[in-house]
Amino acid sequence: MTTTLTNRQVRLAARPVGMPKRSDWNFVSEPVRALADGEITVKTLYLSLDPAMRGWMNEGKSYIRPVAIDEVMRAGGIGKVVASKSPKFAVGDYVSGVIGVQEYWTGPADDKGAGIYKVDPKAAPLPKYLNALGMPGMTAYFGLLEVGQPKAGETVVVSGAAGAVGQTVGQVAKHKGCRVVGIAGGKDKCDFVVNELGFDACIDYKSGSVREGLKQHCPKGVDVYFDNVGGDILDDVLTRINMKARIIICGAISQYNNTTPVKGPANYLSLLVNRARMEGIVVFDYADRYHLGVAEMAKWMKEGTFKTREDIVEGLDNFPETLLMLFEGKNFGKLILQVAKDE
Amino acid sequence: MTTTLTNRQVRLAARPVGMPKRSDWNFVSEPVRALADGEITVKTLYLSLDPAMRGWMNEGKSYIRPVAIDEVMRAGGIGKVVASKSPKFAVGDYVSGVIGVQEYWTGPADDKGAGIYKVDPKAAPLPKYLNALGMPGMTAYFGLLEVGQPKAGETVVVSGAAGAVGQTVGQVAKHKGCRVVGIAGGKDKCDFVVNELGFDACIDYKSGSVREGLKQHCPKGVDVYFDNVGGDILDDVLTRINMKARIIICGAISQYNNTTPVKGPANYLSLLVNRARMEGIVVFDYADRYHLGVAEMAKWMKEGTFKTREDIVEGLDNFPETLLMLFEGKNFGKLILQVAKDE
Repeated sequence: MTTTLTNRQVRLAARPVGMPKRSDWNFVSEPVRALADGEITVKTLYLSLDPAMRGWMNEGKSYIRPVAIDEVMRAGGIGKVVASKSPKFAVGDYVSGVIGVQEYWTGPADDKGAGIYKVDPKAAPLPKYLNALGMPGMTAYFGLLEVGQPKAGETVVVSGAAGAVGQTVGQVAKHKGCRVVGIAGGKDKCDFVVNELGFDACIDYKSGSVREGLKQHCPKGVDVYFDNVGGDILDDVLTRINMKARIIICGAISQYNNTTPVKGPANYLSLLVNRARMEGIVVFDYADRYHLGVAEMAKWMKEGTFKTREDIVEGLDNFPETLLMLFEGKNFGKLILQVAKDE
Repeated sequence: MTTTLTNRQVRLAARPVGMPKRSDWNFVSEPVRALADGEITVKTLYLSLDPAMRGWMNEGKSYIRPVAIDEVMRAGGIGKVVASKSPKFAVGDYVSGVIGVQEYWTGPADDKGAGIYKVDPKAAPLPKYLNALGMPGMTAYFGLLEVGQPKAGETVVVSGAAGAVGQTVGQVAKHKGCRVVGIAGGKDKCDFVVNELGFDACIDYKSGSVREGLKQHCPKGVDVYFDNVGGDILDDVLTRINMKARIIICGAISQYNNTTPVKGPANYLSLLVNRARMEGIVVFDYADRYHLGVAEMAKWMKEGTFKTREDIVEGLDNFPETLLMLFEGKNFGKLILQVAKDE
């Protein structure tokens, strides 16, 4: 490793109010530092852009500490080891971990902290490790199966259906024998999840009433709802749930940039009437079983019965605007920022 | 039985908007009808007045069909058999069942429909069969134990703590080794649940901040919350729940007379952060196990380690105003309307 490597970084400049603005970010360059024993330097190739990032930018208690002002923005990503003082990793290895919005990550090469682990570019294209074979996939897989407990023949509804989590939720549910109805914004996304991913139906919330769509496409009601969006759509689904329904609270992307209080689900008393359950999921709780989810989905991928779609935008400098695509529903598939070419 | 018995009834005249008014009720008298084979006539002694009654007055799908316009208002109660063409019941027997807001109930003497069953006035005073040994008690017992799954050492919080359900929730939780914190309106009610019922603490929502009270009295956070009230108090508790907390949705008395939409819990994303659960309970689901709950609580009553308090108002004519006491927080203990003396 030479000392000439420069690490361009995106740091949090201010806590955003509502949608993050470019002035909430600082672009900083600094030399890549020398390695201590046990450390590696990873060159960032792909970064995962996720709705949860908006939460990390806020102050206050959550399932993970907030990103500090002037800290490099947290992000999971895939990179290539370019320097190593660790016996576990060799230069040229591909790894996944919480490497941050920057060109190079340097730190201890263990599965604590940044959670660095090897990925195999021959088993699957690298971006898949940020999608179904990464955090969104694990969130979908364990959230659906462990919290949702779907049974064959039941009806599963998922919002954000064309997004990273939604794609996987729907396909896992199909593999488990459920009727699957997506909710997504726009005809293209709806066509995609039905025609490409095999969902039974998809409701376009931008072109009509979600309640009417649920009536039409869930004639036996809703047994499991995997909620990525919150807001009015959660309330609409609550009017259609069955007895003993399970609602998985994975996120509430419609509410993350609110400058007013979060809209609570006004129809939550449907839980009472239907003896139903609403339960939160955080993916880290299933870390010791990720390999099981990866194995099952990789098998389906090989069989050709499980597909994923990524929406890849190039350039670290485009990070601020690319992140906003999530909240404007502009990404089509798992949103990924390509920071460097693999060369 | 003579034909001279007159049955004074309270019928639903109109679906109330907001708080029920006297004009939403019709007082009607009609002769008690002759018995068919298998039927009995019950003279009403005590009627249970419950928050759920407000929901029964609304149109629309719920866990039970609405009371129809011009139908006798639904109510559970305790009465005495005054005429019988059923081999199961003799004149003079005391029974519990859904006998309605009227002086006499006549119908089939089975455990379907009105769910008529015998109660023993020697085992416990009759009003107790509308409190801990009746529906509120069963709701509390099975809601807490089956949905809440409290473990010894955990902190259980219950709102409406001095009410029929709240009293029992807190005492059952104490018997199971939990720390119990009530939420109630006014010093008298708080003193009662702490000094008489043995709760560890009680927060007076009328005299201070519920959030501050929770901070002070639940230093280890909240593991189980039994919610009878909804609204702001539910939101306050959501800010203090522990990982894997269980919230039992039993009711939302703060919202039943709204003329605006129900206030959904704005802090529901705390379920996500804490991998917590919110689940509804309807007591009828546990009907085949009521006897187990009755047996355990009756044992505690005999030991003197379980108390209940009733707030008994006299006179069928006072039904409309007495029902409102529930929504104004004016009852102190299980609210019961005494329709006739046992003579």
